[in-house]
Amino acid sequence: MNFTSDNAYGAAPEMLEALGAANSGAVASYGEDQLTAQLESTLADVFEHEVVVFPVITGTAANALALSTLVPSHGAIFCHRDAHIATDECGAPELFTQGATLATLEGESGKITPEAIEEAVSHFAIGSVHHSQPAAVSITQASEMGTCYRPDELHAIASVAQRHGMKLHMDGARLANALAFLGCRPAETTWKIGVDALSLGMTKNGALGAEAVVFFRREDVRDFEFRRKRFGHLISKMRFVAAQLLCGIENDRWLAYGRTANALARGLARRLGGISGVEIAYPVEANLVFASMPESLAQKLRLAGATFYDWGPSRNGRRLVRFVTSFAMPQHDIERLCAACT
Amino acid sequence: MNFTSDNAYGAAPEMLEALGAANSGAVASYGEDQLTAQLESTLADVFEHEVVVFPVITGTAANALALSTLVPSHGAIFCHRDAHIATDECGAPELFTQGATLATLEGESGKITPEAIEEAVSHFAIGSVHHSQPAAVSITQASEMGTCYRPDELHAIASVAQRHGMKLHMDGARLANALAFLGCRPAETTWKIGVDALSLGMTKNGALGAEAVVFFRREDVRDFEFRRKRFGHLISKMRFVAAQLLCGIENDRWLAYGRTANALARGLARRLGGISGVEIAYPVEANLVFASMPESLAQKLRLAGATFYDWGPSRNGRRLVRFVTSFAMPQHDIERLCAACT
Amino acid sequence: MNFTSDNAYGAAPEMLEALGAANSGAVASYGEDQLTAQLESTLADVFEHEVVVFPVITGTAANALALSTLVPSHGAIFCHRDAHIATDECGAPELFTQGATLATLEGESGKITPEAIEEAVSHFAIGSVHHSQPAAVSITQASEMGTCYRPDELHAIASVAQRHGMKLHMDGARLANALAFLGCRPAETTWKIGVDALSLGMTKNGALGAEAVVFFRREDVRDFEFRRKRFGHLISKMRFVAAQLLCGIENDRWLAYGRTANALARGLARRLGGISGVEIAYPVEANLVFASMPESLAQKLRLAGATFYDWGPSRNGRRLVRFVTSFAMPQHDIERLCAACT
Amino acid sequence: MNFTSDNAYGAAPEMLEALGAANSGAVASYGEDQLTAQLESTLADVFEHEVVVFPVITGTAANALALSTLVPSHGAIFCHRDAHIATDECGAPELFTQGATLATLEGESGKITPEAIEEAVSHFAIGSVHHSQPAAVSITQASEMGTCYRPDELHAIASVAQRHGMKLHMDGARLANALAFLGCRPAETTWKIGVDALSLGMTKNGALGAEAVVFFRREDVRDFEFRRKRFGHLISKMRFVAAQLLCGIENDRWLAYGRTANALARGLARRLGGISGVEIAYPVEANLVFASMPESLAQKLRLAGATFYDWGPSRNGRRLVRFVTSFAMPQHDIERLCAACT
Repeated sequence: MNFTSDNAYGAAPEMLEALGAANSGAVASYGEDQLTAQLESTLADVFEHEVVVFPVITGTAANALALSTLVPSHGAIFCHRDAHIATDECGAPELFTQGATLATLEGESGKITPEAIEEAVSHFAIGSVHHSQPAAVSITQASEMGTCYRPDELHAIASVAQRHGMKLHMDGARLANALAFLGCRPAETTWKIGVDALSLGMTKNGALGAEAVVFFRREDVRDFEFRRKRFGHLISKMRFVAAQLLCGIENDRWLAYGRTANALARGLARRLGGISGVEIAYPVEANLVFASMPESLAQKLRLAGATFYDWGPSRNGRRLVRFVTSFAMPQHDIERLCAACT
Repeated sequence: MNFTSDNAYGAAPEMLEALGAANSGAVASYGEDQLTAQLESTLADVFEHEVVVFPVITGTAANALALSTLVPSHGAIFCHRDAHIATDECGAPELFTQGATLATLEGESGKITPEAIEEAVSHFAIGSVHHSQPAAVSITQASEMGTCYRPDELHAIASVAQRHGMKLHMDGARLANALAFLGCRPAETTWKIGVDALSLGMTKNGALGAEAVVFFRREDVRDFEFRRKRFGHLISKMRFVAAQLLCGIENDRWLAYGRTANALARGLARRLGGISGVEIAYPVEANLVFASMPESLAQKLRLAGATFYDWGPSRNGRRLVRFVTSFAMPQHDIERLCAACT
Repeated sequence: MNFTSDNAYGAAPEMLEALGAANSGAVASYGEDQLTAQLESTLADVFEHEVVVFPVITGTAANALALSTLVPSHGAIFCHRDAHIATDECGAPELFTQGATLATLEGESGKITPEAIEEAVSHFAIGSVHHSQPAAVSITQASEMGTCYRPDELHAIASVAQRHGMKLHMDGARLANALAFLGCRPAETTWKIGVDALSLGMTKNGALGAEAVVFFRREDVRDFEFRRKRFGHLISKMRFVAAQLLCGIENDRWLAYGRTANALARGLARRLGGISGVEIAYPVEANLVFASMPESLAQKLRLAGATFYDWGPSRNGRRLVRFVTSFAMPQHDIERLCAACT
Repeated sequence: MNFTSDNAYGAAPEMLEALGAANSGAVASYGEDQLTAQLESTLADVFEHEVVVFPVITGTAANALALSTLVPSHGAIFCHRDAHIATDECGAPELFTQGATLATLEGESGKITPEAIEEAVSHFAIGSVHHSQPAAVSITQASEMGTCYRPDELHAIASVAQRHGMKLHMDGARLANALAFLGCRPAETTWKIGVDALSLGMTKNGALGAEAVVFFRREDVRDFEFRRKRFGHLISKMRFVAAQLLCGIENDRWLAYGRTANALARGLARRLGGISGVEIAYPVEANLVFASMPESLAQKLRLAGATFYDWGPSRNGRRLVRFVTSFAMPQHDIERLCAACT
């Protein structure tokens, strides 16, 4: 019973088939191949918009490369206090940008608000060389708490960003889960509401290891290709990464994987939430369940063979813990976990 | 007939099988899994020495991460003028090290000599803060020209490095080809002659995308793990990279792939060398053939459907061109190419 | 009536005399001269401890060079939300450290507390490569709000730092003002309470432009000298910077300048505080006075010819403003300002 | 008898007077003062062209800030093998640019040629992300060997730079000496021949410590001001640096200092060159004399109290040594040195 992360699970079988299909003959390397070209046109269809697409291997690389392309070294990036770029990338954004500042914001259930951005921006002295300058907003869809921004929420955030001349970046490591929950078209949660660059994740939803940076305007790409090369992220046999991304997109597989994982999370939350002493901390929209429970119960679950992360320190004998579900997770693990509660 | 690069070819079928075998159930992510652990013990056997192993995806990442761990920002790294780190990584070593200097050396057939290192080091003012300080020697085995350092050559280079307190790094993107040619044990071309860190390549010899940084002493690892994470190279589903490396090592498959590629190169060189007006530029030891030929012949080969790279500008109607062979290349491509010459 | 900053004022006449005295004959450059050597022994006397001293020109350079020497790139630095390194250096610490994280803390009157550090550290996952690691605490003495840490406060902070294996850095741009207020010996507010590296400021208290990084243990210096050179801060005619620092130290001039500035601030606060509608926001200990006043009054003072900075946005018709005093400020400016209030 | 460097000598007395004159009252800090504004208009007169001027303290800072503003991180900078940026700045250009490449060229007497640039550029694969891209040429006027580029030489270099879309940077640490030798107007050796950014040195010719980065087109300035701040080079009491630069420019004092130093060098070379066994290695145009002499003679001169640097290793009992003269050097030191030869 592994609830630690969606990346603890393997790849969808279709992904391995796609790798096999891609493995014939000699092709141009470093992304000059047919599959990588096809990926760009396929994603243009998916997003109903021109896109420029750069496959990479890790989400940290996607985020840090995208942000360092969008913002200058003297820029400030506004994001949620719990955003992956702020808490789980060990300073990669500051490193890649040669010293841009992360300005972190509070926000309920992992989401930032236009008001919080506006307030934070008001503390920056625009035009003063002594201070980093507001340059980008980064939002996570679905958020680190498993909640999803609604299109109108995104629109309001984008308006603030635009008003201050800031770029809008979306960390979409779990975009498939968000799309599955929201039931909206990819365009509606990206370029239509003003996203300039998207870190598109596939690893958590089916791939062995495949992400992509997606730009919606060619002029935003700037020196991205040199940057990707220089940070060591230009993959020689690129077709194998493109093949995974294509496989996930084809037949909306990524959405199906996301839907499966979300459903498992919802089921888990419903059952856990019914147990006395357990409280579900945030709305369960994507594939994450945060539950507050007595330390003793968390301990009991672990003894029963479940693995999951504590989230923050223990308080008054209670602990917030995180359960992540995956499309590849056996359905009966949910049942076994809940059975172990009683 | 694709002779542009060994990374234009796909993966060995066994690699895909290994991915399938690795794709079962949930395991710890980020390299805390069984396969990654097994990789370390397997490589310890292969190298007959304790090793600390960090899988990554690209050779540029392996080189830049290894070098930036070995040398300080004020260090100078000595390498061949044509080394990959000097010519094909777009400044990655300078970037990762926050500004170390590459001191490039001339050297016949892609190999540097102890004398050239000694001479170059003599120009550095040791202990002066105005000047970068000699910190590492980086050698490429097999070299960019397809030649291989013999153990005694390596030993002499390592002696100079040690005498000046410098670390020794080996770029082994084509280590399998070198081992296949030299017929020596991995230990004899690495730690036994003083290599401190090795960029071990598998992508050019069978893998879809798998390299590793191998340290031979734990104290040299220093902050490598943070560095790998911070540059975006810590892969979540690490088992799939470890599986490729293991697959290549098992049953000495990488050596077999290297041997096949080398044999193709030797055959190509023998036949090309017999054609009037063609001169083989360097000893053909690994899987690279550099041939000087009339522009007209190069043009003729391209018209016949062969792809390969020019190496430097045209001189007096002649051109140096590079042919790379791969284990996955059809044998008859060699014949077709040579047939097209006449 | 310039109350914008202590660096709006010029240099003490003695400083210019010291430059003249230093200007004779040829001496070794880059800090190999007699005056720079003398500075180190003089500061050893002042601090009653071995010191290693590196003069630089700006406070930002002193802070960023010191911090990047003390902490690794994957380190986190804990400081007050309003610390100069967090708000006025445009990302220099992140740049110099190649991406270390600034973790900013709330704290009354510009001072951080051991509890706030402890709480913040508890959110970091020690030993995890996904997260920056607690590496240093940076405190500002006197603080940005003009308050001074008492020795026991410093001791408590240093204890937390030591417990977590963190280094302690002090930004002493206004150390002279703090020492003048506290009346304690320099040792008591630095190495005796555990400060590892001090940014010692002289520019705000008499010099034309002279700061120094002071280490209290030789092993902490590490690669500082290369770092200073590489960031362009190794000054060729160093004697002129050393001469200023020596001049300030001699006869405790810096303390006298600090005392004068502090007294002006106290006088200003006393008189301003007596005016109806004006509230002094923080204890006035060094040479900074923060006053909350009606917008209309601030406007009136500006019309009367006073310059000073607003501190944050207007709220309910009131504004927090900052007045800085300098040893070189005419006493009657205080009177003119206060007269203009009525 | 100190012939080690022109920065071993102090400041011109007029400089100290200028500091005194600048030291009255409160003025805006960080370069918003009158003197800094005046500097810009004065230099516009001197250069007969619009200029944007940024005073800094060190030549390394001027060079690294200018270059990192002109070239992207994936750029290559072409310069002489012995250029200060390549040999005496400990990697600062690579650091400031986040990893740009220095491509060093051979060239007689410290000067590069259009042909050498053209040849070097031909080795770069334009548009390939695998390779740094030609971005700037940096020339030193007067060169590290004390020779001066003639306007037609500069023009030819600038033509190559422009043909390849490269910026042209001039390291003018000894520009005064070059102007004094060439007898040309500043415009003729800078913007008129295509220089985009100039590191203007005053420290070697009179100042205590004052350099400036001069841009000749506002659009080239880009983010320079943030960069200067972020690298710690924005000086608070800027008036004192501006005052030195103004003092040097006024009445062409810098040219007079340069002329004096040059004359001393010429005299020294004439006398040294007449001594049996001594050969002057390069044309003596500025204030540097390189002499090849028997080791025994160099030793004798040192015993007589002269200090100077060896330049490279001893060969066949002979040594190349460097003598630097300064405007502030006693005339009789030349005589004493030459007397000691016999």
